[in-house]
Amino acid sequence: MNFGILIFNQVEELDFAGPWEMLTLWSKVADGPENCLIVGETKSAVTCAKGLSVNPHVSFEECPKLDYLLVPGGIGARTQVNNRILVDFVANQGQHCQAVLSVCTGSFILHAAGLLSGKKATTHWGSLERLRALGNVQVVEERYVRDGNVWTSAGISAGMDLMLAFIASVSGETAAGQVQSQAEYYPASTRYGDFEHQEQAPAYLKQPT
Amino acid sequence: MNFGILIFNQVEELDFAGPWEMLTLWSKVADGPENCLIVGETKSAVTCAKGLSVNPHVSFEECPKLDYLLVPGGIGARTQVNNRILVDFVANQGQHCQAVLSVCTGSFILHAAGLLSGKKATTHWGSLERLRALGNVQVVEERYVRDGNVWTSAGISAGMDLMLAFIASVSGETAAGQVQSQAEYYPASTRYGDFEHQEQAPAYLKQPT
Repeated sequence: MNFGILIFNQVEELDFAGPWEMLTLWSKVADGPENCLIVGETKSAVTCAKGLSVNPHVSFEECPKLDYLLVPGGIGARTQVNNRILVDFVANQGQHCQAVLSVCTGSFILHAAGLLSGKKATTHWGSLERLRALGNVQVVEERYVRDGNVWTSAGISAGMDLMLAFIASVSGETAAGQVQSQAEYYPASTRYGDFEHQEQAPAYLKQPT
Repeated sequence: MNFGILIFNQVEELDFAGPWEMLTLWSKVADGPENCLIVGETKSAVTCAKGLSVNPHVSFEECPKLDYLLVPGGIGARTQVNNRILVDFVANQGQHCQAVLSVCTGSFILHAAGLLSGKKATTHWGSLERLRALGNVQVVEERYVRDGNVWTSAGISAGMDLMLAFIASVSGETAAGQVQSQAEYYPASTRYGDFEHQEQAPAYLKQPT
């Protein structure tokens, strides 16, 4: 199995690094895909939104047929939705993937590739209205949402919750538990400030816990 | 202010990428350090534990005097504790830093650099006994722990909780809240499997929530 994670200039670091960690632990401790790839348009180093420099494993040209594709977001996604080469790559690979996933504003790239038509999807709370305005997608305010073979998550850190849920769906709860314990992903419940009481907070955050 | 995050071959990806995201958001949305640096022994690309390839911003030689230093862990930390050049770099920078932080088994590198003497510290649950066996450190089983100017966290994903607590300590809860909301770090509380009921689970996880 081939699992590709797309990167591009100005991609948000944790959008792909969080899912990458969960994905590769899945392959290490359970039955995750043998082939986990960071995919760039070319193999040139990619400078992320906050300055991290990452080298793709494969270019679009070299990339094998993927079984799963994850598209992260970040400020760079705003320009990449107009990059025909990248959008075509996502559309073509997405056609035959068993599942396509996005984190944060990566959902705008899925939308540009025609993969969100009539589907439920989500994005970073700060971009929910912008995604709604595109039309032809049912925007929900969840931590992550699955609609058929399309999985999308809320902002930045939500990609980790998305990946664990995806792993549980594909490999079962035991595998997801092994990944969660290896990653020691038992986050503190501390909430600094009062964002959940603000107007712009996403619906899932306003629900009583 | 200069905040350096050390990387080395076989460093665990999320150990540094999680704190990097929180750190750089702190600088973007509040009053975090102006200068956030990924520091390697040389500027050659570093291959992480799960295969991600990252380019350091500066080598040890080029690295400015740091105000803060964060040391991640990973399987590579087991060899780096015997790398005199790296351990000396951490010891020398650590001497004048306002704070030194570690994630996961990065605490073994702090220990090798003499920075944990008589201090409370923690690490990944799978390495707690190994850290205890080193002696001259009081190992606690918390998500993260501060002892004076030394902050250490549990495994892999715990570095994000560490950084938010560190930001709250340095810049206040409002700044930490701004970072948390931008990162949309309101993780799902789902626990897959029953790790928290197993013998080897760290104490903080066994506490009723």
